[in-house]
Amino acid sequence: MKEEDLVYGFGEAVRGINKRGFSYESFCLDDDMHTEQKHSLYGAHNFFMVSGEESFGVFVDYPGRVRFDVGETVSSKFMIIVEEFCFDLYIIEAPTMKEINREFRKLIGRSYIPPKWAFGYQQSRWSYKSEEEVREVATHFREKHIPIDAIYLDIDYMDHFKDFTVSNTNFPNLQQLIEELKQQRINLVPIIDAGVKMEEGYSVYEEGIRNGYFCTDENGEPFVAGVWPGKVHFPDVLNPDARTWFGSQYKSLYDMGIEGFWNDMNEPAMFYSLDGIAQLIESIENVKGKNLDMDTFFQMKDKFANMMNNLTDYQSFYHNVNGVRIRHDKVHNLYGFNMTRAAKEVFDNNYPEKRILLFSRASYIGMHRYAGIWTGDNRSWWSQLLLNIQMMPALNMCGFLYSGADIGGFGDNTTEELIIRWMQFGIFTPLMRNHSAAGTRRQEPYAWEKIDVIRKIIGIRYGLIPYLYSEYMKAVLNNEMLFYPLAFEYPDDSRARGVENQLMVGESIMIAPMYIQNARGRYVYLPEDMLLVRLKSVKEREYSMYKKGDHYIDVPLDEVVLFVRKNHIFFLGNEAESVPELDSENLEIIAWADEDISYQRYDDDGETKKYRASEHYSTIWVEWENNQYDIKVQKDNNTIFKHYDGQNIFHPF
Amino acid sequence: MKEEDLVYGFGEAVRGINKRGFSYESFCLDDDMHTEQKHSLYGAHNFFMVSGEESFGVFVDYPGRVRFDVGETVSSKFMIIVEEFCFDLYIIEAPTMKEINREFRKLIGRSYIPPKWAFGYQQSRWSYKSEEEVREVATHFREKHIPIDAIYLDIDYMDHFKDFTVSNTNFPNLQQLIEELKQQRINLVPIIDAGVKMEEGYSVYEEGIRNGYFCTDENGEPFVAGVWPGKVHFPDVLNPDARTWFGSQYKSLYDMGIEGFWNDMNEPAMFYSLDGIAQLIESIENVKGKNLDMDTFFQMKDKFANMMNNLTDYQSFYHNVNGVRIRHDKVHNLYGFNMTRAAKEVFDNNYPEKRILLFSRASYIGMHRYAGIWTGDNRSWWSQLLLNIQMMPALNMCGFLYSGADIGGFGDNTTEELIIRWMQFGIFTPLMRNHSAAGTRRQEPYAWEKIDVIRKIIGIRYGLIPYLYSEYMKAVLNNEMLFYPLAFEYPDDSRARGVENQLMVGESIMIAPMYIQNARGRYVYLPEDMLLVRLKSVKEREYSMYKKGDHYIDVPLDEVVLFVRKNHIFFLGNEAESVPELDSENLEIIAWADEDISYQRYDDDGETKKYRASEHYSTIWVEWENNQYDIKVQKDNNTIFKHYDGQNIFHPF
Repeated sequence: MKEEDLVYGFGEAVRGINKRGFSYESFCLDDDMHTEQKHSLYGAHNFFMVSGEESFGVFVDYPGRVRFDVGETVSSKFMIIVEEFCFDLYIIEAPTMKEINREFRKLIGRSYIPPKWAFGYQQSRWSYKSEEEVREVATHFREKHIPIDAIYLDIDYMDHFKDFTVSNTNFPNLQQLIEELKQQRINLVPIIDAGVKMEEGYSVYEEGIRNGYFCTDENGEPFVAGVWPGKVHFPDVLNPDARTWFGSQYKSLYDMGIEGFWNDMNEPAMFYSLDGIAQLIESIENVKGKNLDMDTFFQMKDKFANMMNNLTDYQSFYHNVNGVRIRHDKVHNLYGFNMTRAAKEVFDNNYPEKRILLFSRASYIGMHRYAGIWTGDNRSWWSQLLLNIQMMPALNMCGFLYSGADIGGFGDNTTEELIIRWMQFGIFTPLMRNHSAAGTRRQEPYAWEKIDVIRKIIGIRYGLIPYLYSEYMKAVLNNEMLFYPLAFEYPDDSRARGVENQLMVGESIMIAPMYIQNARGRYVYLPEDMLLVRLKSVKEREYSMYKKGDHYIDVPLDEVVLFVRKNHIFFLGNEAESVPELDSENLEIIAWADEDISYQRYDDDGETKKYRASEHYSTIWVEWENNQYDIKVQKDNNTIFKHYDGQNIFHPF
Repeated sequence: MKEEDLVYGFGEAVRGINKRGFSYESFCLDDDMHTEQKHSLYGAHNFFMVSGEESFGVFVDYPGRVRFDVGETVSSKFMIIVEEFCFDLYIIEAPTMKEINREFRKLIGRSYIPPKWAFGYQQSRWSYKSEEEVREVATHFREKHIPIDAIYLDIDYMDHFKDFTVSNTNFPNLQQLIEELKQQRINLVPIIDAGVKMEEGYSVYEEGIRNGYFCTDENGEPFVAGVWPGKVHFPDVLNPDARTWFGSQYKSLYDMGIEGFWNDMNEPAMFYSLDGIAQLIESIENVKGKNLDMDTFFQMKDKFANMMNNLTDYQSFYHNVNGVRIRHDKVHNLYGFNMTRAAKEVFDNNYPEKRILLFSRASYIGMHRYAGIWTGDNRSWWSQLLLNIQMMPALNMCGFLYSGADIGGFGDNTTEELIIRWMQFGIFTPLMRNHSAAGTRRQEPYAWEKIDVIRKIIGIRYGLIPYLYSEYMKAVLNNEMLFYPLAFEYPDDSRARGVENQLMVGESIMIAPMYIQNARGRYVYLPEDMLLVRLKSVKEREYSMYKKGDHYIDVPLDEVVLFVRKNHIFFLGNEAESVPELDSENLEIIAWADEDISYQRYDDDGETKKYRASEHYSTIWVEWENNQYDIKVQKDNNTIFKHYDGQNIFHPF
């Protein structure tokens, strides 16, 4: 690598937008400490792009372990280590980063499209443990007028963590609850785990055993791992019959009215294997009464720490792929991929006209066709907010457009300031979900003193949906990115190439999120003239025109800021409390223009699938006429003057 | 707290310079993951200052657990929770932060002064395991002309980790090695651990037992903990007799020629207690063969993780303080303090005219009188470099002037870029030591491709020593800070109050370190006009004058940058390879002035202790004469024209 080369990609990975200076290892891993030295997270995204004198993209299609040493060992050397020879290598050449990415995306297929309600605010917690608790959460939101579209069920809704069961004790009338919530325009989204509990009489377990649908150990017996339910088997989702069988299980919940699912623990996560735990207990027994030297002590300690997600365990079970027995570790990164595909294929076959929300924790390149992802068990740390910001364009490069992090942070206690700043960024991510771990401080919007600030921020999200949805859909249909680095838009601007804390969002805006504790302002680099929009709420807005260059801007805790590119059209919708309440026609058009400009807008019903229909497209025009700006909207060659409103249209200096 | 109040202090603690938004718990802890959610690190520094409409400092003098909730629970509330009523509370009122700190520092006493060679570059590793390896390290430095003043011995120099012993196998002729290295102007600095190995025939153990000098358990028997040597007793350094006895052990190494020591594991760190490990093994035995549910599994896992530095263990041993039996946890934060005091008192009594290098891992307010501290087992993460930067002023506030972090990071593998950037900051910290853990990548300066860049950076450190030493000594003698936030110098500048990534260093310069991977430039806020000095080496310099305000500056990997305040004098020394080779007379004076200016310089022999002697002070004048600047130096009322040199003196615009 030359000193000036930049490297982008690797999807779900730690560190900055420019990936130089570290090694990334593709091996889906359940690890909730996303600190700087972690080489693997939940997803395995073997794609990168180099921007330099020569620019190109590389996709290493191999489902086992791949290591990318991007100048970690020797700062000028990029090394790729693939464990076996049986991989496909794609090298994509095109003149710009955007074009390289478009070519790659064409290759790997169109990104998943969720229902439009999935662009609303979503509230989760491990766990809302009963129907009463779920109702209480819904009531808080609706009574306090905090917008929301979905509430999540984490593992405790199940009967003893058995997939596709519902606890009789805590959720005796789930179907009724679903209906009740739907009347409040709130969707209930349950979790589905990978491991199937071993329990006589549990139909999923028994069917799996009867048909040989589980992964097997060396002796051909179903492999036993320890996860939430205790001992489980893993459905062999790489086997097409088993995959269809597992996917069809989702129907029982769908039939109750569930329209969204999140697939978890599908790296697959393993707390221990039967062999592993037995060996560990034995080795500890052996030291009993002996003088414990430090080597032995640390060996024991390490063994315990390494029980979880152990490579030896991943090497000790097998898949049956069309009659061929394949050791798991060689196809490890395809497990979550195929678990999610299982659901998606069954949905597509059974409900071909219905969009269903689906996202996964583990993933591999290509899974973006079936579902979105969330970025797993992050922490309530400021550095994880920055990671969220820097990860979004990398995920988009790999086709994962429907994605987002646990806002506020999953593990550890969050603070009011952190959740406010995280929300201010989260309003731009397609998946906007507040989620937190058991044992941590409550972090729902109504848990805070500054509930008004948070309510307004979520309100701004709903105002953004018309723009976000339009840009999301265009990105999906045209193989573009929703989030992209400044360098992709301004490749010849050497300063833009170094910007790691601002992002382009769609074609019209740039964001400069706040991610530092106690900061009340920040530096922003503008690669061109832009209009700064300050929002205290959708309706409370201020504008100022900024010239290309460096600026320091104040960003109080109660303001969302964004920048509209000069001669680009941005627009906001109304203050709705749920997606169905959005008025998608009456928009406020915001622009700073010194010429006639236009924007092609996409919109649809958010439920059905005729994405390519021309009726979904309209064109917004801002035109200079009689010394004033005029706004018009064209659809199907008809011009409709929605309203005359120059009040948010700014003239050149 | 009001929205605009700032909170400073807490010494060794995570997060930014302004401590609002988190809770800090004073309880010395051996923890090598200095991530954002850690409430305690190795030091317990119960002092903070509030800057707002009312400004004041608070010192809570209590040696057990104290919690400071600085708006974590409720953002506008500061809560202090002390475990018992027996504490002293000091409230210090003065008009400015600097004055509040000066008053506090007067109260707690003068900071430790090391020998001058301890301002040289120091190289460490866990461990250089033999005389050959130490010689090899020294040879690398001297042959490659990389400046150095000290090499460290980590735990492996001892015979089975027994304090004050030396391995016969690996260091058969330690005294000869010490002498050899001294001829190369390199000091050898051994580690001393808190725990004394239980071993018949080992004199320290036997003397301690004979005299009842160890901490005792509930039954009055010496308390047993597991640390590096296996089973150990902790010297009861709170007992004055035991303290003198333990301190006197250092003499055996001093008599061999050792002039520096670092005290480690003195929180005191405990891998386990005898009771703890026995209970753990038993509980694991009990689950053998049983169906392991997840609760039990995670309980086991947590028990293992919590074996180390467990509160129950800290509650189960006792000190004998002048005949009074005190449970350890109530005086926990005084352990490292008194272990270090043990050495210092014996040194002062036996070698009253000799400065000896001494620093510790654990500490409490007041220990700064005896020794410096290093900031413990950090990681090779960019975020830890930023933490190092932000921690320095907080340590200074608490009197710990001789301090620094493990440059390059202790745990995990560092990279060339990280160590270069860390070095570029580390050249300003009084303790400048590169240290790394067993099993990590080698990180000595000669381990890297860009050895020339690193050599020059260390060279710049030596050029800085005349200024740093002068400022260090003045800070010690006048109860000032060496590192301080911009807000302390420019209290009415609201922008300066928000700066978290620039520091004032002494009276004449400001630094703006690079701490972001792949960045080749950064924003800088100048609270007044300043002269930017770019150094590729001590001799390769460039200057540019910058106006007060915001600037973006390029900072290539091979440049150190610093800012000289307008109308202040800064100076550089020569390119020495060790402190004794520094020419402390011939300095290059650097300034940007539009008036006559002067600087009071401190210098001494770096070995003896008559700090207050007037001969140590001189005054440097830069005066406008005949349209040119003239430099003169005055000492004891005699004017000495050292040289006429206007070449680094800049005129106003």
